[in-house]
Amino acid sequence: MEFQLEQATEILRSTPSTLNSLLRHLSDAWIFHNEGPESWSPYDVLGHLIHGEETDWIPRAKIILEDGEARSFEPFDRFAMFEKSRGKSVAELLDTFESLRGLNLKELEAMHLTAAELEKRGRHPELGVVTLSQLFATWVVHDLGHIAQVVRVMAKQYGDEVGQWRAYLPILVK
Amino acid sequence: MEFQLEQATEILRSTPSTLNSLLRHLSDAWIFHNEGPESWSPYDVLGHLIHGEETDWIPRAKIILEDGEARSFEPFDRFAMFEKSRGKSVAELLDTFESLRGLNLKELEAMHLTAAELEKRGRHPELGVVTLSQLFATWVVHDLGHIAQVVRVMAKQYGDEVGQWRAYLPILVK
Repeated sequence: MEFQLEQATEILRSTPSTLNSLLRHLSDAWIFHNEGPESWSPYDVLGHLIHGEETDWIPRAKIILEDGEARSFEPFDRFAMFEKSRGKSVAELLDTFESLRGLNLKELEAMHLTAAELEKRGRHPELGVVTLSQLFATWVVHDLGHIAQVVRVMAKQYGDEVGQWRAYLPILVK
Repeated sequence: MEFQLEQATEILRSTPSTLNSLLRHLSDAWIFHNEGPESWSPYDVLGHLIHGEETDWIPRAKIILEDGEARSFEPFDRFAMFEKSRGKSVAELLDTFESLRGLNLKELEAMHLTAAELEKRGRHPELGVVTLSQLFATWVVHDLGHIAQVVRVMAKQYGDEVGQWRAYLPILVK
């Protein structure tokens, strides 16, 4: 598929309710278990997504539009959420994510981006030259990747409980 | 996690609304593209999940409870949905899945399964001896695996659109 802002937004709009459906009514065991040392639980992923709404996507879009390649993005802190989420319930994190995502999509809409603007270039501190449309495509794939992670982490909690069926369940060995 | 029927049911209950949130409001391009030859689109996955509700989980649970190891399950047809879904809209498939899942969870609840019954054994035509709790754990992991598949297939549609960010998005190479 070629990038189209409206199609990308369809996914970005649905992620809060997808996560809400997946996580809001679950026992703590599903929410707080991870895949082993150095890995993230669904709870950690939620905090990471919130931090992205605050510091990554729209702020980087503004840097591209205002400064182009002249100014590198701030590096993204992949561990900030361990401190920031502390003491918050899953419901609070889901509500925060939904609210921030809604605000960011309003900001995006208010930008009234043209096809030419979507081709504007910026500079990633590690990856080099990127475009605005690539940033938004990455926002979409990043959402989908973390939904996949959340369900994979939950599936693995039953890795032993499925018995012989393990052979038919590739998600358990990813 | 050790298998507990109530915790398993939390996931089984949420899958229809998760898929609804993910898929109902998307453009056809997200719904009908797959990962290449012999692979499934989100639309195909929905049909597969419906066929599972009709022929797999609860019917197999009844075989275990009634006949134990004496009677092998019917083999599951992994391709039945290509014929059965023909001509149906995504909205129809989502509604059908939600309705069948609801009925199956009511049947499950009405079984009032005891811990001893959950340990009852049955015979899988290829895998051999399995237990009722393993069947239900597999139902959960099967749901989660297909949610992961749906989001992976959608993510891959933007495999080229993310540019250099590809290096940070493991979902694109799975």
